[in-house]
Amino acid sequence: MTRAQLIQQIKIKRSFLCVGLDTDIKKIPSFLLEFEDPVYEFNKRIIEATSDLCVAYKPNTAFYECYGLKGWTSLQKTWEILPKDCFSIADAKRGDIGNTANMYAQAFFDEGASGLGFDSITVAPYMGSDSVLPFLQFKDKWAIILALTSNQGSADFQNIQDKEGVQLFERVIERANYWGSPENLMYVVGATRGEAFKIIRKHAPDHFLLVPGVGAQGGSLEDVCTYGMNADCGLLINATRSIIYASSGKDFAEKAREEAILLQKAMEKELIKANII
Amino acid sequence: MTRAQLIQQIKIKRSFLCVGLDTDIKKIPSFLLEFEDPVYEFNKRIIEATSDLCVAYKPNTAFYECYGLKGWTSLQKTWEILPKDCFSIADAKRGDIGNTANMYAQAFFDEGASGLGFDSITVAPYMGSDSVLPFLQFKDKWAIILALTSNQGSADFQNIQDKEGVQLFERVIERANYWGSPENLMYVVGATRGEAFKIIRKHAPDHFLLVPGVGAQGGSLEDVCTYGMNADCGLLINATRSIIYASSGKDFAEKAREEAILLQKAMEKELIKANII
Repeated sequence: MTRAQLIQQIKIKRSFLCVGLDTDIKKIPSFLLEFEDPVYEFNKRIIEATSDLCVAYKPNTAFYECYGLKGWTSLQKTWEILPKDCFSIADAKRGDIGNTANMYAQAFFDEGASGLGFDSITVAPYMGSDSVLPFLQFKDKWAIILALTSNQGSADFQNIQDKEGVQLFERVIERANYWGSPENLMYVVGATRGEAFKIIRKHAPDHFLLVPGVGAQGGSLEDVCTYGMNADCGLLINATRSIIYASSGKDFAEKAREEAILLQKAMEKELIKANII
Repeated sequence: MTRAQLIQQIKIKRSFLCVGLDTDIKKIPSFLLEFEDPVYEFNKRIIEATSDLCVAYKPNTAFYECYGLKGWTSLQKTWEILPKDCFSIADAKRGDIGNTANMYAQAFFDEGASGLGFDSITVAPYMGSDSVLPFLQFKDKWAIILALTSNQGSADFQNIQDKEGVQLFERVIERANYWGSPENLMYVVGATRGEAFKIIRKHAPDHFLLVPGVGAQGGSLEDVCTYGMNADCGLLINATRSIIYASSGKDFAEKAREEAILLQKAMEKELIKANII
């Protein structure tokens, strides 16, 4: 999917919601366990209930790999039913050097080889340029680089200041801006830090930002939009638990839809406020 | 596998060789393509030809994931035939937060859940403590943290100096030393930088180091041993291409063995020189 197509979807759906598919078999309604592939059945119902309200889906690969071959099968089947008008993100946080990064790109982008053809993949920056560049060789595919994450340990390294007082996550964005463009690069920025978006936007005014941490992790949608939105929206805000685990009963899909509607409505307000729609 | 068991294997086999199983279907002898699972058949013959000469095997997961379900099946089958006296490394370079890191640990450590029960996994440090700690909760399992890698892009971030002149890779080791111990933590240190081992050993005198980059990537075994060996050896030196692609003909396993013997003999010399055997 191109940047223009993504922006168009945001305007059509009046939403910049990304739904995380971190499907944990221990947390899904028990009646689904009778199916042959409960994780896939859960995802299918969540997707059906939310696809008109969100512009992206983001399965985290760890939740599939942890069941080995069976889990990889659920991921494969889930990818196959992701609506084509939604931006698909393999939240895999891969990072390896040149030749090996090529293999990871093939794993998540090249449907003919691997069976998976996601629009994008999350990538860890620690190994530097040659761990990211191979992902940018694929037409209309994206690398989403970890910049500033919202977890507790993020400060361990991401906030280290160099001799010029520049923090590591800023250096990551500065360098990565040379590797790609706003047409094929996004950054992950945790939403628990509203003020951090000011710094991020200084370095990356035009890039889309993938923002986890709104809702369950404590970030405020309004804060993120105040500091992080740009003229094209420039935000994909991810919600996972608040949507997919809105209910543990038979009504889980219905409740997921209700939660998604609340977020979509709040996002619509922000898009109107910013004169984007 | 415990640290004591690993050291014992090094003494028994007079070797600290790790064989990388980065098996690329485009590079393996063509006669293997007639088999149902050529990657597995290749690995099987490589393992049979080298298992008395090395103490570890390290499949890089990217080379399996790139073929989707079929590739994951090859990885599963390969794991099943890894000799139990060899330390097994899932070179997966995973890195995600708490709950998700738990899932990755399950994916590679918990045979009952995922089918895979590797002794260790390589981990990227960018997200900090909570991306590593979950791997250290498994008995006799190891996290191998990327510290200083041997690729071209490694200098992009790993060598950034903070206000006190300390480089990022040093900060990674300093912090990670608090998360685990030499009984469950190793560091990845690229071998193309002999002199860097002096700095590494200042921060991590007792830890094992996983060292890629000897041979094909230009590092010298003698340099690495001079600067990097400790009283327990403390090194796992990985060789991949020089061994597994020693020949592209029917004699590939035999030639792989010849290359492994050369490395084992050179390692034996270093172990004797250091009075370890």
